[in-house]
Amino acid sequence: MTADLERRLRALEDEAEIHRLAARFSDAVNERDLAAFGRLWAEAGAVWSIGPPLTSRAEGREAIVGLLESLYKLERYFMQMTHSGVVTLDGDRATARYVVREHGRGDGTYYENLAVYNDELVREADGWRFATRSYVYRFLSQKPVDEEAFEVTGDHPDQISQ
Amino acid sequence: MTADLERRLRALEDEAEIHRLAARFSDAVNERDLAAFGRLWAEAGAVWSIGPPLTSRAEGREAIVGLLESLYKLERYFMQMTHSGVVTLDGDRATARYVVREHGRGDGTYYENLAVYNDELVREADGWRFATRSYVYRFLSQKPVDEEAFEVTGDHPDQISQ
Amino acid sequence: MTADLERRLRALEDEAEIHRLAARFSDAVNERDLAAFGRLWAEAGAVWSIGPPLTSRAEGREAIVGLLESLYKLERYFMQMTHSGVVTLDGDRATARYVVREHGRGDGTYYENLAVYNDELVREADGWRFATRSYVYRFLSQKPVDEEAFEVTGDHPDQISQ
Repeated sequence: MTADLERRLRALEDEAEIHRLAARFSDAVNERDLAAFGRLWAEAGAVWSIGPPLTSRAEGREAIVGLLESLYKLERYFMQMTHSGVVTLDGDRATARYVVREHGRGDGTYYENLAVYNDELVREADGWRFATRSYVYRFLSQKPVDEEAFEVTGDHPDQISQ
Repeated sequence: MTADLERRLRALEDEAEIHRLAARFSDAVNERDLAAFGRLWAEAGAVWSIGPPLTSRAEGREAIVGLLESLYKLERYFMQMTHSGVVTLDGDRATARYVVREHGRGDGTYYENLAVYNDELVREADGWRFATRSYVYRFLSQKPVDEEAFEVTGDHPDQISQ
Repeated sequence: MTADLERRLRALEDEAEIHRLAARFSDAVNERDLAAFGRLWAEAGAVWSIGPPLTSRAEGREAIVGLLESLYKLERYFMQMTHSGVVTLDGDRATARYVVREHGRGDGTYYENLAVYNDELVREADGWRFATRSYVYRFLSQKPVDEEAFEVTGDHPDQISQ
């Protein structure tokens, strides 16, 4: 009976940890925390890809963090919203798909979208990591909006100014 | 002690499974996967209702899948976002309420809303299912938006064109 | 082994209960259920603060419920969407951060924002409560939108009219 409980508990833990990883992704993006962002990816060979019409691709943690850094230069204000997602566990591998919305503003540019993240995950020695995340746009608007946007403050240095 | 652990684990599993069902609902809708959508509902007598001002109602899995199919004909682009929800367990029955946002576009029509899904759930032999889902609009905009919308691709055949 | 299972189960329960608390916050706000809203906060000394540019602060359950009531008078239509959040457990204390979006309309006023809630939580005799919630705006729009907004109905008396 205890072995059965352990198996059921492990399944819940795995799903919760993958949801946590997706939540930490948005949190790191929104708080502009590049170090936390890098730790979400598999140690070796991770691939982050963003599909058309704004295609980008980076392979390996260092390049992935570099890509995020370059996106921050475009978007002085940027927020990512992770909605619900579905996870399929398969031992030490998993797949997931999340609904994501993003909202941003650069120098005279505007960015709003709806997309899905198709993910492959791998269980490493200290927990689940993204092996791949592929962003598939379903909607994109680049129309100006009347708004005020505010700097990221707190523990992290301010990295945007309006 | 083991019996107590099992009871606590079961409560977590039940809530997680109901959240998973709500996530699978949006996933099936967004991926235009009618078969997956049908499997979310109770074997017999399930009721899907959408309240005013765009009232619809379907009873039974077959009619429910037919209603979704008819909505796809109206909305060539459509995304549903499930936000947080609260679940109340009561043995093999449960109720839940989720905050939902939808975004769509048809032929010259536009659709954006905010709503709550009031749900009744039932535990069947192989897991939780929706006995009823009632969509209650809180906000509705049918104003044109400047946008690009993209086809659903991947495992599912493309069912929309722009 | 059972003690280890209990520890792992407890960690999952704690995180799930904190996510539930954040979900109940949005649910109480959206359903205009002041009593449910009050019960989410620590018995004594809880602080709810909303940062610039629309600064507010209330201390203690009674004042907190009073602040929500005053906000309802401004916003005849109001919906709050809780997205993903990250939780850090530390015994009977915890911290969390959630991405939140709000959408509202008053008499000739409009309100749309994106923000993060920075939270401190405390485990009381009967469960986790908010010790503090601090709303940090990242985006604010007060531009008119074409829309229909609908009353909150159901178990709760209608408190808005259009």
